[in-house]
Amino acid sequence: MDKKAFQDYYPDLFSHCYGCGRLNEHGLHVKSYWDGEESVCTFHPRPYHTVFPGYVYGGLLASIIDCHCTGTAAAAAYRAEGRDMDTEPPLRFVTASLHVDYLRPTPLGIPLEIRAQVKEVTGRKVVVTAALSAQGAVCARGEVVAVQVPEHWMPDSAWGDHSPAEKKED
Amino acid sequence: MDKKAFQDYYPDLFSHCYGCGRLNEHGLHVKSYWDGEESVCTFHPRPYHTVFPGYVYGGLLASIIDCHCTGTAAAAAYRAEGRDMDTEPPLRFVTASLHVDYLRPTPLGIPLEIRAQVKEVTGRKVVVTAALSAQGAVCARGEVVAVQVPEHWMPDSAWGDHSPAEKKED
Repeated sequence: MDKKAFQDYYPDLFSHCYGCGRLNEHGLHVKSYWDGEESVCTFHPRPYHTVFPGYVYGGLLASIIDCHCTGTAAAAAYRAEGRDMDTEPPLRFVTASLHVDYLRPTPLGIPLEIRAQVKEVTGRKVVVTAALSAQGAVCARGEVVAVQVPEHWMPDSAWGDHSPAEKKED
Repeated sequence: MDKKAFQDYYPDLFSHCYGCGRLNEHGLHVKSYWDGEESVCTFHPRPYHTVFPGYVYGGLLASIIDCHCTGTAAAAAYRAEGRDMDTEPPLRFVTASLHVDYLRPTPLGIPLEIRAQVKEVTGRKVVVTAALSAQGAVCARGEVVAVQVPEHWMPDSAWGDHSPAEKKED
């Protein structure tokens, strides 16, 4: 596996995400890597990420799946262009839709493994599916439709006054 | 509006949820209320709940929608039984599936309003839809399929050694 996670290649401006931004000191720091054709993420929920005592909160699972899949979408887009993630221009994806099916309670206190597969790469859209497991048992399955961030959102140096919402009206 | 939120009626054992548990000191403390036939929740994301600078993290939005909708499912189930939420036996719902469509970036720094409608009550299953708005603009729409927690998960006094996963095998 590459020692650098997908998220470690994001430009600084896109590295403040609560789920996966390396610059968000309060965040979850989801880290994703290729493992052959699949991507993999290992996540250790904190003791307070509980739904009932002993079990993990489903909103946290949705968050991990979300960031792992948008990271995988970015990595897949670089692959589709035949270039490495440290090459220009940078690609970053946001979530258009997120779906999670919760199959069984997810035990707290052990590492979770999330494995994702790229289902579809179509223009600026990438569809990624994921399975979240605890000790080999699949606890949740997810699907994310990820869309590439428009170039005019991306930093040339910084957004300055150009926020996504303002720029969207262009 | 009732001064007590749906989540304030949950038994103590079910009040540790990171999303909405009043006993989770690290949690988000989602609070939901009836407003006629709809339920409503107002949520103030924290400054670090960011996706990009100035915008709210989608995983957080999914979490708020999740807890608001499962709370609404519980409240709807009491209504369907024609009784108040402080009557026995307690009803609590978990998420079977969660779907969120992100329609536009959600601005950070202002309160968000989540309004939910009960789409279907069928036996132990309740389907709830939600719209999440910032300053009147709908930023995300969600749908949650919520399922009533089995009676044998519910506290008579406490679970003791009976965790959901263990009990599931009964």
